[in-house]
Amino acid sequence: MGSDAAMSPKITVELLRQLRQAMRNTKYIAEPIQAYIVPSGDAHQSEYIAPCDCRREFICGFNGSAGTAIVTEKHAAMWTDGRYFLQASQQMDNNWTLMKMGLKETLSQEDWLISVLPENSTVGVDPWIIATDQWKNMSKALAGAGHSLVAVQDNLIDAIWMDRPTRPSTKLLTLGLGFTGLTWQDKMTALRSKMAERKISWFVATALDEIAWLFNLRGSDIEYNPVFFAYAIVGMNTIRLFVDIKRLAVPTVREHLQLDTPSKAELSIQTAPYESVFTELQAVCASLVPKEKVWISDKASCALTQVIPKAHRSLIPYTPLCLAKAVKNTTEIQGMKMAHIKDAVALCELFAWLEKEIPKGTVTEISAADKAEELRSQQKDFVGLSFPSISSVGPNGAIIHYRPLPETNRTLSLNEIYLLDSGAQYIDGTTDVTRTMHFGSPSAYEKETFTYVLKGHIAVSAAIFPNGTKGHLLDSFARQALWESGLDYLHGTGHGVGCFLNVHEGPCGISYKTFADEPLEAGMIVSDEPGYYEDGLFGIRIENVVLVVPAKPKYNYRNKGSLTFEPLTLVPIQAKMVNTDILTQKERDWVNEYHRQCRETIGAELERQGRKEALDWLIRETQPIA
Amino acid sequence: MGSDAAMSPKITVELLRQLRQAMRNTKYIAEPIQAYIVPSGDAHQSEYIAPCDCRREFICGFNGSAGTAIVTEKHAAMWTDGRYFLQASQQMDNNWTLMKMGLKETLSQEDWLISVLPENSTVGVDPWIIATDQWKNMSKALAGAGHSLVAVQDNLIDAIWMDRPTRPSTKLLTLGLGFTGLTWQDKMTALRSKMAERKISWFVATALDEIAWLFNLRGSDIEYNPVFFAYAIVGMNTIRLFVDIKRLAVPTVREHLQLDTPSKAELSIQTAPYESVFTELQAVCASLVPKEKVWISDKASCALTQVIPKAHRSLIPYTPLCLAKAVKNTTEIQGMKMAHIKDAVALCELFAWLEKEIPKGTVTEISAADKAEELRSQQKDFVGLSFPSISSVGPNGAIIHYRPLPETNRTLSLNEIYLLDSGAQYIDGTTDVTRTMHFGSPSAYEKETFTYVLKGHIAVSAAIFPNGTKGHLLDSFARQALWESGLDYLHGTGHGVGCFLNVHEGPCGISYKTFADEPLEAGMIVSDEPGYYEDGLFGIRIENVVLVVPAKPKYNYRNKGSLTFEPLTLVPIQAKMVNTDILTQKERDWVNEYHRQCRETIGAELERQGRKEALDWLIRETQPIA
Repeated sequence: MGSDAAMSPKITVELLRQLRQAMRNTKYIAEPIQAYIVPSGDAHQSEYIAPCDCRREFICGFNGSAGTAIVTEKHAAMWTDGRYFLQASQQMDNNWTLMKMGLKETLSQEDWLISVLPENSTVGVDPWIIATDQWKNMSKALAGAGHSLVAVQDNLIDAIWMDRPTRPSTKLLTLGLGFTGLTWQDKMTALRSKMAERKISWFVATALDEIAWLFNLRGSDIEYNPVFFAYAIVGMNTIRLFVDIKRLAVPTVREHLQLDTPSKAELSIQTAPYESVFTELQAVCASLVPKEKVWISDKASCALTQVIPKAHRSLIPYTPLCLAKAVKNTTEIQGMKMAHIKDAVALCELFAWLEKEIPKGTVTEISAADKAEELRSQQKDFVGLSFPSISSVGPNGAIIHYRPLPETNRTLSLNEIYLLDSGAQYIDGTTDVTRTMHFGSPSAYEKETFTYVLKGHIAVSAAIFPNGTKGHLLDSFARQALWESGLDYLHGTGHGVGCFLNVHEGPCGISYKTFADEPLEAGMIVSDEPGYYEDGLFGIRIENVVLVVPAKPKYNYRNKGSLTFEPLTLVPIQAKMVNTDILTQKERDWVNEYHRQCRETIGAELERQGRKEALDWLIRETQPIA
Repeated sequence: MGSDAAMSPKITVELLRQLRQAMRNTKYIAEPIQAYIVPSGDAHQSEYIAPCDCRREFICGFNGSAGTAIVTEKHAAMWTDGRYFLQASQQMDNNWTLMKMGLKETLSQEDWLISVLPENSTVGVDPWIIATDQWKNMSKALAGAGHSLVAVQDNLIDAIWMDRPTRPSTKLLTLGLGFTGLTWQDKMTALRSKMAERKISWFVATALDEIAWLFNLRGSDIEYNPVFFAYAIVGMNTIRLFVDIKRLAVPTVREHLQLDTPSKAELSIQTAPYESVFTELQAVCASLVPKEKVWISDKASCALTQVIPKAHRSLIPYTPLCLAKAVKNTTEIQGMKMAHIKDAVALCELFAWLEKEIPKGTVTEISAADKAEELRSQQKDFVGLSFPSISSVGPNGAIIHYRPLPETNRTLSLNEIYLLDSGAQYIDGTTDVTRTMHFGSPSAYEKETFTYVLKGHIAVSAAIFPNGTKGHLLDSFARQALWESGLDYLHGTGHGVGCFLNVHEGPCGISYKTFADEPLEAGMIVSDEPGYYEDGLFGIRIENVVLVVPAKPKYNYRNKGSLTFEPLTLVPIQAKMVNTDILTQKERDWVNEYHRQCRETIGAELERQGRKEALDWLIRETQPIA
């Protein structure tokens, strides 16, 4: 996604003409449709998507992460949120109307369709890229106005997209016990015991990270996410894996999956082409006896979900794989710790380097991010970044989802705050860390707000809470100090983090918005990242990845047991930004103890790697505060 | 509900025989039904119900506040929760099976019905006392197993209940502007402007407190709740009030409602008998033109809700009356303050009296509660209690919903903690206060846990938070100190409080359980009542009613503005129970400032009322803590 493509509008006259033709073409649909919906996303409801799935970008030009395009016979409109108003208006030509979500006057997709469609219209959508609940809402709203929503099996964008990239089919990486702690056979057995417990005969896995986790395999089909395109259908005696068959021709993969020499019949994997999941699921469903139930995520595609007859369908908000994956085992925890040590080494080196280079005026947001990536890539088992680095100077820091582009690229200086939110994938773990630094003299106000954010970070990190507590109940702890001064931040406080998997994963998190989260459990890993953003001036965020661990407070009410967090991220928090007067003694002790750990653990590794300058920097930055 | 009735089982052989006969009687149903559901509750989904609505108690003998009875041709079962297992087992004879909710092995009502019913059975229920969402769930579950749920218009319990009390029709009390701050005409106009805003033609009011609030009328049909049985249907030019017509024969009521001389046509009230709401709503619905919408609460009865054709029905979680009622106007706030001053006078006198009387060994939970009621009744405009007093000594304090009965009645002593949770209805306001006291020497552990609860109480009461914050986001503040020591309490932290209305009201509150709450707004009134309960030993709860008020912190992020709480309850918190070492300086300051206010405001009123002993007690109990 280069800057040229990003910032000049895409000419869409011809594409829209072709799409409208397809909307009337009986090759694809029995009757012409009057509107076609193009959501973001892929058939697995992935957060990040592969180039072949960027259909909304293809049709309208807008390449932000969130947006839905709708084309009717006469109109073309695209809905996105406040983060993207400017970008979308620059990337779309005037065949398109930008629908600014969140503004009062902006119609919803349903209301807009109802306002522009002729009576008794038919609206089409690809059932593979719309989730069941979205389908239901849209279908209901349209039906209420006399229209109907229909599934168009052939994707009409794909039909007109001549140079559409092929679906990636990257090399599969097998992970041994030393990284996973459990064989895929163990995981399969655990899954089946959950199924037996709830009298479930079949489970359909559709989320790519769940499939990767289940089979102890990784791929690189999607940037930043070490996953591969696949589906799985698991019965009590059957395992079907749907994946590009060519990928299985590799001996290590064949052996890992025991494709040629399965030990037991029920652990024998039947492989089939990725595309055959639909017909295979139909076959499974045709053989169901009354009362047999099939588990599928309520976020799975409409297409697959509707294959399962309603009487047999059991929709679940979080699959047993999602829940099992969230609680890391000892090996995974050890791996995550190792990954965070390596990551901290790279960041210490980066910050030492920045300290030296910034005064020369040659470091920019982009070059600093590149340097961070370079330093990370020197670490063992580095695979790639875990998300696009948010490297932001001064006012750019106030744009929460900022990503530096050549035309916005600012130079790091001694006068402005620098915020770096970045992370990497290593074979042993995934990292995600934000540090906010000032390389000159921060103002009293910058220090004051930084310190409130730090207080919030500590309040969550040091919180002790009963077993069974949901993460959203901790969100206000992160805001208390800011609220007391009339300040706040408009994002959640934390998200689940995968182990050499997606940097954002469910089912846990820390947010005022999430009430469907599952309770925190020892072994879960989340981020703790309160912030403060002053529009046009600066952004502050302090983010550690933290591990949920048992706590041993004085009492133990009803033998419930307590939990707390242990920071996995071990990168100094800049003391220069702290107004120590605003901290309590307990908070100062927390900072000093945290820095002692950073010095001890990261210092030893810097020593071992012979990174002298970074070690000096670390030692300076971890002096106790008074 | 005397103690005899409460604790010996009701003989139900004959009643069950009659009910089963009615279940086959074509006088009531076209075809026999195989099961009949008897929920708790009335046609208005009231929390407290009138004797004529205690149908579940009538059929099975169990008189607790929560429980559902189901009778089939062969079985009779009653579901209730852990609070009531003992009581229910004592009150029901062996024709009944007690279904202990919350235990793993206990079947749900649906599953139990499916397990005992013959194929293709019909299950009946009175559609007036089941809410729409409950109906839907039950209906769906039964349909899935080949059965069906049907509405039985005549209540079959009423059919066999020979000495059923008549529906109360108490004297209506009209409230003038001095108490309400707004005329009912103003409220009607405001309601209609909300309706116009959302293009709603009709609104059906079913909640008794909303109707009482709308018309500035009160009744005493239900104990503790100053409400009266009624419905209202409001259109843009029509007001229909459904109430026992005899109640309107009083000149003051006629004048208040302007029944004889309406000022404007659209403010003219058409009155009709309570029972005629069904046919009148049918008539309204018959006249609807396409796209016209009717608002009704999603908690309204199935019977009324289903009168409104689906295309016209707009279900809302909180009605505009519920929302408007929650934000108290200046007059109501003033009234609530007055009520709390009077209430504090009574409690200061009570505690001074207890201090003197307890050493004699003659005060019991029941006599203390009676004394509190007597002292409250001496205050101006006292109407009655706002809920049954929870007056509990030692281990009884650990039973959260305890209500003293002769067989559980404990004597107050110098050795055990006394917890009193009580409140009253005054014409100017409703109170609800809990104080936990020790009249001898509390143990270090009692003081420690009391102090944690106090820290939680203060954390909520002194919290500053942005406008738009929902109350449930404050719940964890109340638990933080307890959690740090491994302790917790298993109830919410606060509920909305009506103004001379129900002591529990929506749509706001402070609870880890409630996510459907509406944001807190200046003028809302809630309780702040964290606690700690040590089974078999003691209970601690510190409860104030607090008013949401604007706060003015240092900054004002995005001009959102901030809020905080002002305590309305002004009764000293026993300093003897506090371990001041565990308090921060800020918390000690809060206690001292709170006690200064108690002394100033309540002291002046005690002085005025010449209650010398209580004044001395107040002055002693409000000495600053160090």
